[in-house]
Amino acid sequence: MTSLPESLVGKTVAVLGGTGPQGRGLARRFAAAGLPVVIGSRSAERAAEAASALVEAVGGTVTGADNAGAAEAGDVVVVAVPWDGHGELLKELAPVLAGKVVVDCVNPLGFDKQGAYALPVEEGSAAQQAQGILTESTVVGAFHNVSAVKLEDPEVASVDTDVLVLGDVRAATDLVQDLAGTIPGVRGVYGGRLRNAHQVEALTANLISVNRRYQAHAGVRVTDI
Amino acid sequence: MTSLPESLVGKTVAVLGGTGPQGRGLARRFAAAGLPVVIGSRSAERAAEAASALVEAVGGTVTGADNAGAAEAGDVVVVAVPWDGHGELLKELAPVLAGKVVVDCVNPLGFDKQGAYALPVEEGSAAQQAQGILTESTVVGAFHNVSAVKLEDPEVASVDTDVLVLGDVRAATDLVQDLAGTIPGVRGVYGGRLRNAHQVEALTANLISVNRRYQAHAGVRVTDI
Repeated sequence: MTSLPESLVGKTVAVLGGTGPQGRGLARRFAAAGLPVVIGSRSAERAAEAASALVEAVGGTVTGADNAGAAEAGDVVVVAVPWDGHGELLKELAPVLAGKVVVDCVNPLGFDKQGAYALPVEEGSAAQQAQGILTESTVVGAFHNVSAVKLEDPEVASVDTDVLVLGDVRAATDLVQDLAGTIPGVRGVYGGRLRNAHQVEALTANLISVNRRYQAHAGVRVTDI
Repeated sequence: MTSLPESLVGKTVAVLGGTGPQGRGLARRFAAAGLPVVIGSRSAERAAEAASALVEAVGGTVTGADNAGAAEAGDVVVVAVPWDGHGELLKELAPVLAGKVVVDCVNPLGFDKQGAYALPVEEGSAAQQAQGILTESTVVGAFHNVSAVKLEDPEVASVDTDVLVLGDVRAATDLVQDLAGTIPGVRGVYGGRLRNAHQVEALTANLISVNRRYQAHAGVRVTDI
Protein backbone atom coordinates (compact mmCIF):
# COMPACT_ATOMS: atom_id res chain seq x y z
CA MET A 1 0.00 0.00 0.00
CA THR A 2 1.48 3.35 -1.02
CA SER A 3 0.38 6.51 0.75
CA LEU A 4 -2.87 8.09 -0.37
CA PRO A 5 -2.88 11.41 -2.20
CA GLU A 6 -3.70 14.29 0.15
CA SER A 7 -7.04 14.91 -1.53
CA LEU A 8 -8.26 11.47 -0.41
CA VAL A 9 -6.95 11.32 3.15
CA GLY A 10 -9.84 10.81 5.57
CA LYS A 11 -12.33 10.24 2.74
CA THR A 12 -14.67 7.26 2.63
CA VAL A 13 -15.57 5.88 -0.78
CA ALA A 14 -19.01 4.38 -1.27
CA VAL A 15 -19.62 2.08 -4.23
CA LEU A 16 -23.30 1.78 -5.16
CA GLY A 17 -23.88 -1.44 -7.02
CA GLY A 18 -20.83 -2.71 -5.23
CA THR A 19 -21.87 -6.36 -5.49
CA GLY A 20 -21.76 -6.32 -9.32
CA PRO A 21 -18.51 -7.16 -11.12
CA GLN A 22 -17.44 -3.56 -11.84
CA GLY A 23 -18.40 -2.25 -8.41
CA ARG A 24 -16.81 -5.19 -6.63
CA GLY A 25 -13.62 -4.77 -8.65
CA LEU A 26 -13.36 -1.06 -7.89
CA ALA A 27 -14.17 -1.59 -4.20
CA ARG A 28 -11.44 -4.21 -4.02
CA ARG A 29 -8.80 -1.89 -5.46
CA PHE A 30 -9.86 1.09 -3.35
CA ALA A 31 -9.79 -1.02 -0.19
CA ALA A 32 -6.38 -2.38 -1.15
CA ALA A 33 -5.16 1.20 -1.56
CA GLY A 34 -6.13 1.93 2.05
CA LEU A 35 -9.35 3.84 1.47
CA PRO A 36 -12.28 3.12 3.79
CA VAL A 37 -14.94 1.62 1.52
CA VAL A 38 -18.67 1.14 1.95
CA ILE A 39 -20.24 -1.31 -0.46
CA GLY A 40 -23.81 -0.47 -1.36
CA SER A 41 -26.34 -2.88 -2.81
CA ARG A 42 -30.09 -3.23 -3.02
CA SER A 43 -29.72 -5.86 -0.32
CA ALA A 44 -27.81 -4.76 2.77
CA GLU A 45 -27.19 -8.41 3.52
CA ARG A 46 -25.48 -9.13 0.20
CA ALA A 47 -23.48 -5.93 0.64
CA ALA A 48 -22.28 -7.09 4.04
CA GLU A 49 -21.29 -10.47 2.60
CA ALA A 50 -19.35 -8.81 -0.21
CA ALA A 51 -17.66 -6.52 2.33
CA SER A 52 -16.58 -9.49 4.48
CA ALA A 53 -15.22 -11.27 1.43
CA LEU A 54 -13.18 -8.20 0.50
CA VAL A 55 -11.75 -7.76 3.98
CA GLU A 56 -10.68 -11.38 3.88
CA ALA A 57 -9.13 -10.94 0.44
CA VAL A 58 -7.36 -7.61 0.71
CA GLY A 59 -7.82 -6.35 4.26
CA GLY A 60 -8.68 -2.74 4.91
CA THR A 61 -11.86 -1.19 6.20
CA VAL A 62 -14.84 -2.37 4.18
CA THR A 63 -18.43 -2.37 5.32
CA GLY A 64 -21.74 -3.06 3.59
CA ALA A 65 -25.06 -1.24 3.55
CA ASP A 66 -28.05 -0.77 1.32
CA ASN A 67 -27.47 1.77 -1.45
CA ALA A 68 -29.04 4.60 0.56
CA GLY A 69 -26.89 3.81 3.59
CA ALA A 70 -23.77 3.64 1.46
CA ALA A 71 -24.63 6.92 -0.28
CA GLU A 72 -25.00 8.53 3.11
CA ALA A 73 -21.72 7.11 4.43
CA GLY A 74 -19.55 7.99 1.43
CA ASP A 75 -17.68 11.25 0.96
CA VAL A 76 -17.13 10.23 -2.65
CA VAL A 77 -19.88 8.05 -4.09
CA VAL A 78 -19.19 5.77 -7.04
CA VAL A 79 -22.27 4.71 -9.01
CA ALA A 80 -21.68 1.30 -10.60
CA VAL A 81 -25.26 0.10 -10.94
CA PRO A 82 -26.89 -1.32 -14.08
CA TRP A 83 -28.16 1.28 -16.57
CA ASP A 84 -31.62 -0.13 -16.13
CA GLY A 85 -32.80 1.60 -12.97
CA HIS A 86 -29.95 4.16 -12.88
CA GLY A 87 -32.19 7.22 -13.03
CA GLU A 88 -34.71 5.88 -10.53
CA LEU A 89 -32.06 5.08 -7.94
CA LEU A 90 -30.44 8.49 -8.25
CA LYS A 91 -33.80 10.26 -7.88
CA GLU A 92 -34.31 8.36 -4.63
CA LEU A 93 -30.83 9.16 -3.35
CA ALA A 94 -30.61 12.78 -4.50
CA PRO A 95 -31.11 14.26 -1.00
CA VAL A 96 -28.34 12.17 0.61
CA LEU A 97 -26.00 12.76 -2.32
CA ALA A 98 -26.32 16.55 -2.10
CA GLY A 99 -22.96 18.26 -1.71
CA LYS A 100 -20.98 15.17 -2.65
CA VAL A 101 -18.84 14.17 -5.60
CA VAL A 102 -20.69 11.41 -7.45
CA VAL A 103 -18.63 9.29 -9.83
CA ASP A 104 -20.77 7.74 -12.53
CA CYS A 105 -19.29 4.60 -14.19
CA VAL A 106 -22.43 3.45 -15.92
CA ASN A 107 -22.36 2.35 -19.58
CA PRO A 108 -25.76 2.40 -21.30
CA LEU A 109 -25.30 -0.59 -23.59
CA GLY A 110 -27.52 -3.03 -25.38
CA PHE A 111 -26.55 -6.54 -26.42
CA ASP A 112 -27.65 -8.76 -29.28
CA LYS A 113 -26.18 -11.55 -31.40
CA GLN A 114 -23.73 -9.11 -32.98
CA GLY A 115 -22.40 -8.00 -29.64
CA ALA A 116 -22.72 -4.77 -27.68
CA TYR A 117 -23.90 -1.40 -28.89
CA ALA A 118 -24.53 2.01 -27.37
CA LEU A 119 -28.06 2.78 -26.29
CA PRO A 120 -29.42 6.24 -27.01
CA VAL A 121 -29.74 8.33 -23.84
CA GLU A 122 -32.15 11.23 -23.82
CA GLU A 123 -29.88 13.37 -21.67
CA GLY A 124 -26.85 12.51 -23.82
CA SER A 125 -25.12 10.11 -21.43
CA ALA A 126 -25.57 8.36 -18.10
CA ALA A 127 -23.31 10.98 -16.52
CA GLN A 128 -25.45 13.83 -17.85
CA GLN A 129 -28.59 12.07 -16.72
CA ALA A 130 -27.05 11.79 -13.25
CA GLN A 131 -26.10 15.47 -13.17
CA GLY A 132 -29.59 16.42 -14.34
CA ILE A 133 -31.10 14.52 -11.40
CA LEU A 134 -28.45 15.32 -8.79
CA THR A 135 -28.59 19.07 -9.09
CA GLU A 136 -26.93 19.54 -5.67
CA SER A 137 -24.07 17.09 -6.34
CA THR A 138 -21.02 17.33 -8.57
CA VAL A 139 -21.10 14.48 -11.07
CA VAL A 140 -17.92 13.15 -12.64
CA GLY A 141 -17.79 10.38 -15.24
CA ALA A 142 -15.00 7.82 -14.85
CA PHE A 143 -14.02 4.12 -14.76
CA HIS A 144 -16.17 3.29 -17.80
CA ASN A 145 -13.60 1.30 -19.69
CA VAL A 146 -11.76 -0.55 -16.94
CA SER A 147 -12.00 -4.32 -17.16
CA ALA A 148 -13.88 -5.74 -14.17
CA VAL A 149 -12.02 -8.99 -14.77
CA LYS A 150 -8.66 -7.29 -14.32
CA LEU A 151 -9.85 -5.34 -11.28
CA GLU A 152 -11.07 -8.51 -9.57
CA ASP A 153 -8.14 -10.74 -10.46
CA PRO A 154 -5.81 -11.07 -7.45
CA GLU A 155 -3.05 -12.14 -9.85
CA VAL A 156 -3.20 -8.78 -11.66
CA ALA A 157 -0.88 -6.58 -9.61
CA SER A 158 -1.07 -3.68 -12.03
CA VAL A 159 -3.98 -2.79 -14.32
CA ASP A 160 -2.67 -1.55 -17.68
CA THR A 161 -5.15 1.21 -18.48
CA ASP A 162 -5.89 4.89 -18.18
CA VAL A 163 -9.19 6.13 -16.77
CA LEU A 164 -10.74 9.02 -18.67
CA VAL A 165 -12.25 11.43 -16.15
CA LEU A 166 -15.03 13.72 -17.36
CA GLY A 167 -16.56 16.65 -15.58
CA ASP A 168 -17.21 20.36 -15.45
CA VAL A 169 -15.69 21.13 -12.03
CA ARG A 170 -11.92 21.04 -11.86
CA ALA A 171 -11.65 20.22 -8.14
CA ALA A 172 -13.91 17.20 -8.64
CA THR A 173 -12.15 15.86 -11.75
CA ASP A 174 -8.80 16.33 -10.00
CA LEU A 175 -10.11 14.33 -7.02
CA VAL A 176 -11.37 11.51 -9.26
CA GLN A 177 -8.08 11.45 -11.18
CA ASP A 178 -6.42 10.94 -7.79
CA LEU A 179 -8.92 8.20 -6.98
CA ALA A 180 -8.15 6.41 -10.26
CA GLY A 181 -4.46 6.72 -9.50
CA THR A 182 -4.84 4.68 -6.30
CA ILE A 183 -5.24 1.58 -8.49
CA PRO A 184 -1.80 0.24 -9.36
CA GLY A 185 -1.00 0.79 -13.04
CA VAL A 186 -3.92 3.13 -13.60
CA ARG A 187 -3.58 6.77 -14.50
CA GLY A 188 -6.50 9.18 -14.19
CA VAL A 189 -6.56 11.38 -17.28
CA TYR A 190 -8.80 14.41 -17.71
CA GLY A 191 -10.95 13.58 -20.73
CA GLY A 192 -13.18 16.61 -21.18
CA ARG A 193 -16.48 17.99 -20.00
CA LEU A 194 -19.57 16.04 -19.07
CA ARG A 195 -21.10 16.78 -22.47
CA ASN A 196 -18.39 14.54 -23.94
CA ALA A 197 -19.12 11.60 -21.62
CA HIS A 198 -21.38 9.71 -24.02
CA GLN A 199 -18.65 8.48 -26.30
CA VAL A 200 -16.48 7.31 -23.42
CA GLU A 201 -19.40 5.31 -22.01
CA ALA A 202 -20.20 3.95 -25.47
CA LEU A 203 -16.58 3.06 -26.19
CA THR A 204 -17.07 0.14 -23.84
CA ALA A 205 -19.06 -1.50 -26.66
CA ASN A 206 -15.97 -1.26 -28.87
CA LEU A 207 -13.79 -2.75 -26.16
CA ILE A 208 -16.22 -5.64 -25.88
CA SER A 209 -15.73 -6.19 -29.64
CA VAL A 210 -11.98 -6.02 -29.15
CA ASN A 211 -12.17 -8.52 -26.31
CA ARG A 212 -14.13 -10.92 -28.46
CA ARG A 213 -11.84 -10.61 -31.49
CA TYR A 214 -8.55 -10.73 -29.59
CA GLN A 215 -9.55 -12.83 -26.59
CA ALA A 216 -8.48 -10.01 -24.31
CA HIS A 217 -9.58 -7.76 -21.47
CA ALA A 218 -8.75 -4.55 -23.26
CA GLY A 219 -8.18 -1.14 -21.77
CA VAL A 220 -7.23 2.22 -23.22
CA ARG A 221 -4.10 4.32 -22.83
CA VAL A 222 -3.82 7.91 -23.95
CA THR A 223 -0.49 8.56 -25.67
CA ASP A 224 1.74 11.66 -25.72
CA ILE A 225 0.80 12.78 -22.21
CA MET B 1 10.59 1.77 -46.34
CA THR B 2 9.60 -1.72 -45.23
CA SER B 3 7.83 -4.07 -47.61
CA LEU B 4 4.08 -3.66 -48.01
CA PRO B 5 1.68 -6.29 -46.71
CA GLU B 6 0.48 -8.58 -49.48
CA SER B 7 -3.05 -7.21 -49.29
CA LEU B 8 -1.82 -3.79 -50.41
CA VAL B 9 0.63 -4.73 -53.15
CA GLY B 10 -0.41 -3.10 -56.42
CA LYS B 11 -3.12 -1.01 -54.74
CA THR B 12 -3.44 2.72 -55.21
CA VAL B 13 -4.73 4.74 -52.27
CA ALA B 14 -6.81 7.83 -52.98
CA VAL B 15 -7.24 10.43 -50.26
CA LEU B 16 -10.27 12.65 -50.78
CA GLY B 17 -9.81 15.91 -48.95
CA GLY B 18 -6.11 15.23 -49.30
CA THR B 19 -5.16 18.90 -49.04
CA GLY B 20 -6.57 19.25 -45.50
CA PRO B 21 -4.31 18.51 -42.51
CA GLN B 22 -5.61 14.97 -41.83
CA GLY B 23 -5.68 13.96 -45.49
CA ARG B 24 -2.29 15.47 -46.18
CA GLY B 25 -0.82 13.71 -43.15
CA LEU B 26 -2.22 10.32 -44.15
CA ALA B 27 -1.15 10.79 -47.80
CA ARG B 28 2.34 11.61 -46.62
CA ARG B 29 2.64 8.45 -44.54
CA PHE B 30 1.11 6.20 -47.20
CA ALA B 31 3.46 7.60 -49.84
CA ALA B 32 6.42 7.15 -47.51
CA ALA B 33 5.37 3.52 -47.06
CA GLY B 34 5.64 2.97 -50.81
CA LEU B 35 1.97 3.06 -51.73
CA PRO B 36 0.97 4.91 -54.90
CA VAL B 37 -1.20 7.81 -53.68
CA VAL B 38 -3.66 10.07 -55.45
CA ILE B 39 -4.54 13.22 -53.57
CA GLY B 40 -8.07 14.41 -54.21
CA SER B 41 -9.35 17.92 -53.58
CA ARG B 42 -12.13 20.17 -54.79
CA SER B 43 -9.48 21.92 -56.84
CA ALA B 44 -7.37 19.67 -59.08
CA GLU B 45 -4.75 22.39 -59.12
CA ARG B 46 -4.33 22.49 -55.35
CA ALA B 47 -4.26 18.69 -55.32
CA ALA B 48 -1.45 18.71 -57.88
CA GLU B 49 0.47 21.24 -55.79
CA ALA B 50 0.07 19.14 -52.65
CA ALA B 51 1.18 16.06 -54.59
CA SER B 52 4.33 17.80 -55.81
CA ALA B 53 5.12 18.97 -52.31
CA LEU B 54 4.77 15.42 -51.00
CA VAL B 55 6.99 13.92 -53.69
CA GLU B 56 9.61 16.47 -52.80
CA ALA B 57 9.27 15.70 -49.10
CA VAL B 58 9.05 11.91 -49.03
CA GLY B 59 9.42 10.68 -52.61
CA GLY B 60 7.13 7.96 -53.90
CA THR B 61 4.40 8.12 -56.48
CA VAL B 62 1.93 10.86 -55.64
CA THR B 63 -0.39 12.58 -58.06
CA GLY B 64 -3.25 15.02 -57.68
CA ALA B 65 -6.77 15.17 -59.11
CA ASP B 66 -10.16 16.55 -58.27
CA ASN B 67 -12.06 14.39 -55.78
CA ALA B 68 -13.94 12.55 -58.54
CA GLY B 69 -10.73 11.79 -60.42
CA ALA B 70 -9.05 10.57 -57.25
CA ALA B 71 -12.05 8.40 -56.32
CA GLU B 72 -11.85 6.85 -59.77
CA ALA B 73 -8.09 6.23 -59.55
CA GLY B 74 -8.02 4.73 -56.07
CA ASP B 75 -8.43 1.05 -55.27
CA VAL B 76 -8.87 2.02 -51.65
CA VAL B 77 -10.42 5.45 -51.14
CA VAL B 78 -9.88 7.37 -47.91
CA VAL B 79 -12.46 10.06 -47.17
CA ALA B 80 -10.87 12.86 -45.12
CA VAL B 81 -13.15 15.72 -46.06
CA PRO B 82 -14.89 18.12 -43.64
CA TRP B 83 -18.13 16.82 -42.12
CA ASP B 84 -19.91 19.75 -43.71
CA GLY B 85 -20.49 18.51 -47.26
CA HIS B 86 -19.57 14.88 -46.52
CA GLY B 87 -22.92 13.42 -47.58
CA GLU B 88 -23.22 15.58 -50.70
CA LEU B 89 -19.76 14.62 -51.95
CA LEU B 90 -20.39 10.92 -51.42
CA LYS B 91 -23.73 11.10 -53.26
CA GLU B 92 -21.91 12.60 -56.21
CA LEU B 93 -19.15 10.00 -56.14
CA ALA B 94 -21.27 6.92 -55.39
CA PRO B 95 -21.06 5.53 -58.97
CA VAL B 96 -17.24 5.72 -59.16
CA LEU B 97 -16.87 4.35 -55.63
CA ALA B 98 -18.96 1.25 -56.36
CA GLY B 99 -17.08 -1.96 -55.63
CA LYS B 100 -14.36 -0.22 -53.66
CA VAL B 101 -13.33 -0.14 -50.02
CA VAL B 102 -14.05 3.35 -48.73
CA VAL B 103 -12.31 4.38 -45.53
CA ASP B 104 -14.19 7.11 -43.71
CA CYS B 105 -12.11 9.20 -41.27
CA VAL B 106 -14.60 12.00 -40.76
CA ASN B 107 -15.39 13.29 -37.27
CA PRO B 108 -18.68 15.16 -37.00
CA LEU B 109 -17.69 17.73 -34.37
CA GLY B 110 -18.84 21.16 -33.33
CA PHE B 111 -16.69 23.76 -31.60
CA ASP B 112 -17.51 26.54 -29.17
CA LYS B 113 -15.76 28.40 -26.35
CA GLN B 114 -15.72 25.23 -24.24
CA GLY B 115 -13.95 23.25 -26.92
CA ALA B 116 -15.12 20.43 -29.18
CA TYR B 117 -18.22 18.30 -28.89
CA ALA B 118 -19.86 15.54 -30.90
CA LEU B 119 -22.57 16.58 -33.34
CA PRO B 120 -25.66 14.39 -33.58
CA VAL B 121 -25.74 12.42 -36.84
CA GLU B 122 -29.06 11.20 -38.10
CA GLU B 123 -27.59 7.96 -39.44
CA GLY B 124 -25.63 7.37 -36.21
CA SER B 125 -22.17 8.27 -37.47
CA ALA B 126 -20.34 9.63 -40.49
CA ALA B 127 -19.34 6.08 -41.38
CA GLN B 128 -22.95 4.88 -41.29
CA GLN B 129 -24.04 7.86 -43.34
CA ALA B 130 -21.38 6.92 -45.90
CA GLN B 131 -22.50 3.30 -46.00
CA GLY B 132 -26.11 4.40 -46.38
CA ILE B 133 -25.18 6.45 -49.44
CA LEU B 134 -22.54 4.13 -50.90
CA THR B 135 -24.68 1.03 -51.11
CA GLU B 136 -22.32 -0.57 -53.66
CA SER B 137 -19.14 0.11 -51.67
CA THR B 138 -17.75 -1.39 -48.47
CA VAL B 139 -17.33 1.35 -45.90
CA VAL B 140 -14.80 1.04 -43.11
CA GLY B 141 -14.29 3.65 -40.37
CA ALA B 142 -10.68 4.35 -39.36
CA PHE B 143 -8.01 6.99 -38.67
CA HIS B 144 -10.41 9.13 -36.63
CA ASN B 145 -8.15 9.75 -33.68
CA VAL B 146 -4.72 10.07 -35.29
CA SER B 147 -3.07 13.43 -34.77
CA ALA B 148 -2.65 15.27 -38.07
CA VAL B 149 0.21 17.19 -36.47
CA LYS B 150 2.10 13.97 -35.77
CA LEU B 151 1.35 12.58 -39.22
CA GLU B 152 2.68 15.70 -40.91
CA ASP B 153 5.74 16.21 -38.74
CA PRO B 154 8.85 14.97 -40.57
CA GLU B 155 10.61 14.74 -37.20
CA VAL B 156 8.08 12.15 -35.95
CA ALA B 157 9.54 8.88 -37.18
CA SER B 158 6.98 6.76 -35.34
CA VAL B 159 3.41 7.73 -34.45
CA ASP B 160 2.50 6.39 -31.01
CA THR B 161 -1.12 5.37 -31.53
CA ASP B 162 -3.45 2.58 -32.49
CA VAL B 163 -6.08 3.03 -35.19
CA LEU B 164 -9.49 1.58 -34.37
CA VAL B 165 -10.91 0.00 -37.52
CA LEU B 166 -14.68 -0.40 -37.72
CA GLY B 167 -16.68 -2.33 -40.26
CA ASP B 168 -19.01 -5.16 -41.06
CA VAL B 169 -16.91 -6.98 -43.70
CA ARG B 170 -13.90 -8.84 -42.39
CA ALA B 171 -11.84 -8.68 -45.60
CA ALA B 172 -12.26 -4.91 -45.67
CA THR B 173 -11.40 -4.31 -42.01
CA ASP B 174 -8.38 -6.60 -42.37
CA LEU B 175 -7.22 -4.56 -45.38
CA VAL B 176 -7.62 -1.28 -43.50
CA GLN B 177 -5.80 -2.69 -40.47
CA ASP B 178 -2.95 -3.46 -42.88
CA LEU B 179 -3.17 0.05 -44.30
CA ALA B 180 -2.94 1.56 -40.80
CA GLY B 181 0.05 -0.66 -40.10
CA THR B 182 2.02 0.91 -42.96
CA ILE B 183 2.45 4.00 -40.78
CA PRO B 184 5.46 3.48 -38.51
CA GLY B 185 4.40 3.02 -34.88
CA VAL B 186 0.73 2.57 -35.75
CA ARG B 187 -1.22 -0.61 -35.18
CA GLY B 188 -4.57 -1.21 -36.85
CA VAL B 189 -6.94 -2.72 -34.28
CA TYR B 190 -10.37 -4.11 -35.09
CA GLY B 191 -12.77 -1.99 -33.07
CA GLY B 192 -16.20 -3.39 -33.84
CA ARG B 193 -19.00 -3.01 -36.33
CA LEU B 194 -20.02 0.14 -38.16
CA ARG B 195 -22.87 0.65 -35.71
CA ASN B 196 -20.22 1.35 -33.08
CA ALA B 197 -18.39 3.97 -35.17
CA HIS B 198 -20.09 6.98 -33.63
CA GLN B 199 -18.24 6.91 -30.34
CA VAL B 200 -14.86 6.48 -32.03
CA GLU B 201 -15.54 9.51 -34.21
CA ALA B 202 -16.80 11.46 -31.21
CA LEU B 203 -13.83 10.46 -29.05
CA THR B 204 -11.82 12.94 -31.07
CA ALA B 205 -13.59 15.67 -29.08
CA ASN B 206 -12.18 14.13 -25.88
CA LEU B 207 -8.70 13.98 -27.37
CA ILE B 208 -9.00 17.67 -28.24
CA SER B 209 -9.79 18.30 -24.54
CA VAL B 210 -6.80 16.18 -23.58
CA ASN B 211 -4.58 18.11 -25.98
CA ARG B 212 -5.69 21.39 -24.49
CA ARG B 213 -5.26 20.31 -20.87
CA TYR B 214 -1.93 18.52 -21.33
CA GLN B 215 -0.47 20.49 -24.24
CA ALA B 216 -0.20 17.28 -26.22
CA HIS B 217 -1.11 15.60 -29.50
CA ALA B 218 -2.79 12.64 -27.89
CA GLY B 219 -3.52 9.27 -29.42
CA VAL B 220 -5.06 6.09 -28.09
CA ARG B 221 -3.57 2.65 -27.48
CA VAL B 222 -5.61 -0.43 -26.74
CA THR B 223 -4.04 -2.49 -23.97
CA ASP B 224 -3.92 -6.25 -23.41
CA ILE B 225 -3.85 -7.12 -27.12
